[in-house]
Amino acid sequence: LDEAAARAAREHQDRLTKPRGALGSLEDVAVRLAGIAGTCPAPIPHPAAVAVFAADHGVHAQGVTPWPQEVTAQMVANFLAGGAVVNAFANQAGATVTVVDVGVAADLPPTPRLVNRKIAYGTADLSQGPAMTREQAERAIATGAEIAADLVRYGARCLIAGDMGIANTTASAALVSAFTGRDPELVTGRGAGIDDATLRHKIEVVRRGLEANGLPSEEVPAIEVVARVGGLEHAAIAGFILGAAAARVPVILDGVIAGAGALVAAGIAPRAIDYCLAGHRSAEPGHAATLEHLGLRPLVDLELRLGEGTGAVLAHPLVCAAARVMHEVATFDSAGVSEKE
Amino acid sequence: LDEAAARAAREHQDRLTKPRGALGSLEDVAVRLAGIAGTCPAPIPHPAAVAVFAADHGVHAQGVTPWPQEVTAQMVANFLAGGAVVNAFANQAGATVTVVDVGVAADLPPTPRLVNRKIAYGTADLSQGPAMTREQAERAIATGAEIAADLVRYGARCLIAGDMGIANTTASAALVSAFTGRDPELVTGRGAGIDDATLRHKIEVVRRGLEANGLPSEEVPAIEVVARVGGLEHAAIAGFILGAAAARVPVILDGVIAGAGALVAAGIAPRAIDYCLAGHRSAEPGHAATLEHLGLRPLVDLELRLGEGTGAVLAHPLVCAAARVMHEVATFDSAGVSEKE
Repeated sequence: LDEAAARAAREHQDRLTKPRGALGSLEDVAVRLAGIAGTCPAPIPHPAAVAVFAADHGVHAQGVTPWPQEVTAQMVANFLAGGAVVNAFANQAGATVTVVDVGVAADLPPTPRLVNRKIAYGTADLSQGPAMTREQAERAIATGAEIAADLVRYGARCLIAGDMGIANTTASAALVSAFTGRDPELVTGRGAGIDDATLRHKIEVVRRGLEANGLPSEEVPAIEVVARVGGLEHAAIAGFILGAAAARVPVILDGVIAGAGALVAAGIAPRAIDYCLAGHRSAEPGHAATLEHLGLRPLVDLELRLGEGTGAVLAHPLVCAAARVMHEVATFDSAGVSEKE
Repeated sequence: LDEAAARAAREHQDRLTKPRGALGSLEDVAVRLAGIAGTCPAPIPHPAAVAVFAADHGVHAQGVTPWPQEVTAQMVANFLAGGAVVNAFANQAGATVTVVDVGVAADLPPTPRLVNRKIAYGTADLSQGPAMTREQAERAIATGAEIAADLVRYGARCLIAGDMGIANTTASAALVSAFTGRDPELVTGRGAGIDDATLRHKIEVVRRGLEANGLPSEEVPAIEVVARVGGLEHAAIAGFILGAAAARVPVILDGVIAGAGALVAAGIAPRAIDYCLAGHRSAEPGHAATLEHLGLRPLVDLELRLGEGTGAVLAHPLVCAAARVMHEVATFDSAGVSEKE
């Protein structure tokens, strides 16, 4: 981050016609955006581009969710037809939606806005051993970084990481547990909706997966951790964050899947998290633990638990509003408003 | 509210391509909007119109704030010049800003977008007796209702109640205490920023004002309560809410001043609150108490404490997103997506 630009932003914020600190967390967002852009005020981060990274998970075979695996490919088709919630939210925010297939377990028909970067037809079952090879994880990370660079090149001024993949909250829980050290029981949630018995089983699957892969361990590098218990979309999102940081463009994180991807990015390059804003806090317990670990404060807190990037897209107008204040609001001097006595 | 439309909205929500309940509070917003509009899906509540009700307060003489009273008129000029935070947020949301002078203690030069409905040059000092006459309160309520009807007539599909008035958090605290029965100590806050000693003094001023005016009392009608310890902008906001309800248009509430106005509206016509959405939860302690009393859940929770309507304008895109989902998202049937087993 550019410390001088951030400092200038904080000082300018304090001269605007409002009580100091009256914009709460949004003042921190404006300061962060200045540090990211390296200028004060930061440009308004509009338009945003959502990349939905889609992949399947071998751990689906363990019965961790009542949703059939085919729903991943079906929802990809829904995104491409413009019929999913992320499309509606993106329309509201003036954002584009690009779907990136990094590992869907089906062949998808070529379609505009679908980027085919399939690395495997889903991961292996993480509860039995490594979900992927290190080389696959590296390819996914590189793919995410490349997508970020492309979107910025084509005009995006804000990046949003979305996800689709049936069973991906199971892999997310394993990643969150591996990176934060918290017990699987505390960070495994109901995902798209499961009953108590399935939740207990899901926690045991996560626990078995960590044991089978020798995690948590401080000795294991982050790329290796995501290869062992993560998903291809997690690795791609980690790369996407690194790509955003390299381009000095903010990235708004969605829920627990994007958060788990950010844990991987932080493990590779801790400063990359400076370029991240937490769009929302999801209802998944592992997400609160992730935000706390990363030191990020969520902008929206409405018990969403959908993924796709929805919570992040929802936060985009708030981020723009924070930036806009720095461009458009008068100072006490310029407006001739008296300050407090 | 139209129960049939609300029920239809809830049922439609459950058929959309997402896990049931995955949009958290936004699902309730979509259902509420359908009930308000009397159709399912509800129209997207865009564009929004912000009415900033400006007025001064006799209790300013008690030294409850370090800001000089002249700041009310200066900030009105700032709103009209487009230089305040509410203007920047409104630009972001595509909303208009209209300033309504119901009681500023100065003559304001005529300007487009300034509506002159001055009822008095500020209220009397509520700590010494009634802040206004019952007739003044009634005129302010009627004015607010008229402004709401005008804004809807000229195209607004969502109304936002804003406020400006130095010392208005003191009158707000008195109203919140009078309507919720909570002790002034629990509902009086630091407003635009005061030190500990001023806060203790402000609490005592609120307490004295309630005693001098025979409040709280279940015998005193809501119009009389706002006349005794409220501000002209509180009464106007109460009328604005009644006008929104009459027009079947949603109104997004801002912070503690709009919330106190909503308590007055609820005292007059409890069902009017069905037409209200809580834009945010401010840092003022009286606001949380108000939302709890009214049974409203805030959409944004970022420790804002600015007023002007800012927290409500910030929530407007979230409300639109909730409505948009009902228009644009495919159902499991229409998209050919499998449901959970």
